[in-house]
Amino acid sequence: MTTAYDESNIFARILRGELPCNKVYEDDATLAFLDIMPRTDGHTLVIPKAPSRNILDIADADLAAVMATTQKIARAVIPAFGADGVTVQQFNEQAGGQVIFHTHVHILPRWDGVELKPHTGEMADQEVLAGHAETLRAALEG
Amino acid sequence: MTTAYDESNIFARILRGELPCNKVYEDDATLAFLDIMPRTDGHTLVIPKAPSRNILDIADADLAAVMATTQKIARAVIPAFGADGVTVQQFNEQAGGQVIFHTHVHILPRWDGVELKPHTGEMADQEVLAGHAETLRAALEG
Repeated sequence: MTTAYDESNIFARILRGELPCNKVYEDDATLAFLDIMPRTDGHTLVIPKAPSRNILDIADADLAAVMATTQKIARAVIPAFGADGVTVQQFNEQAGGQVIFHTHVHILPRWDGVELKPHTGEMADQEVLAGHAETLRAALEG
Repeated sequence: MTTAYDESNIFARILRGELPCNKVYEDDATLAFLDIMPRTDGHTLVIPKAPSRNILDIADADLAAVMATTQKIARAVIPAFGADGVTVQQFNEQAGGQVIFHTHVHILPRWDGVELKPHTGEMADQEVLAGHAETLRAALEG
């Protein structure tokens, strides 16, 4: 549990602008963007800008900032996608379900009677993701 | 999504002392106790003391306090139960998986190669829960 933060992880590369993302929100401490392997339409990730592996090592202020952004997004997906609810997940270490070792929170819009899609490992269509990001940004600004 | 908070929910009754719980931690703003239908050993819930239904209506300060306590518990379950990781879940509205309408965060200790138990609706043995609560309290104090 004392593993060092690895600067080469995908989210660190997104933060450095080395990889693109479908951004939906950004502030001084956090970035929110769509998961490229969504388990629901509008599946969004919130990450802190500061490095941390997960909830075990994140600084208090970064965790509070991530959750404030998570709340903003959770509220916005309801009108943006006509969602009936929201599932929030946050995975820590491989045994806890974590794959990318930069702290992140999953925000999953949910609809009555609709199960989560399984993890297929397939990337979503980029045009669809771009459309969902635009819809969510509009709801956040509205 | 504008449903009013219902003071008769089980967690409100625990907060009022009308129902018992296997308490593991308490501070001015939050209470943590074991889930009576655990999906893993040490499955803990963190709730704010102030009323809110879920992440859609919780006050900023209460959300930050809940997550600070969530972090404390997540860190403590590693040594307490020899866990390899931690899964954090937070459900909002029925479509999002919520059953009890007082904001709560699930903290699930995880071990390599061990799946979550299914939701059976069966209550765990009270002596086992009391033992796990004591183990977790000791780790939090240690």
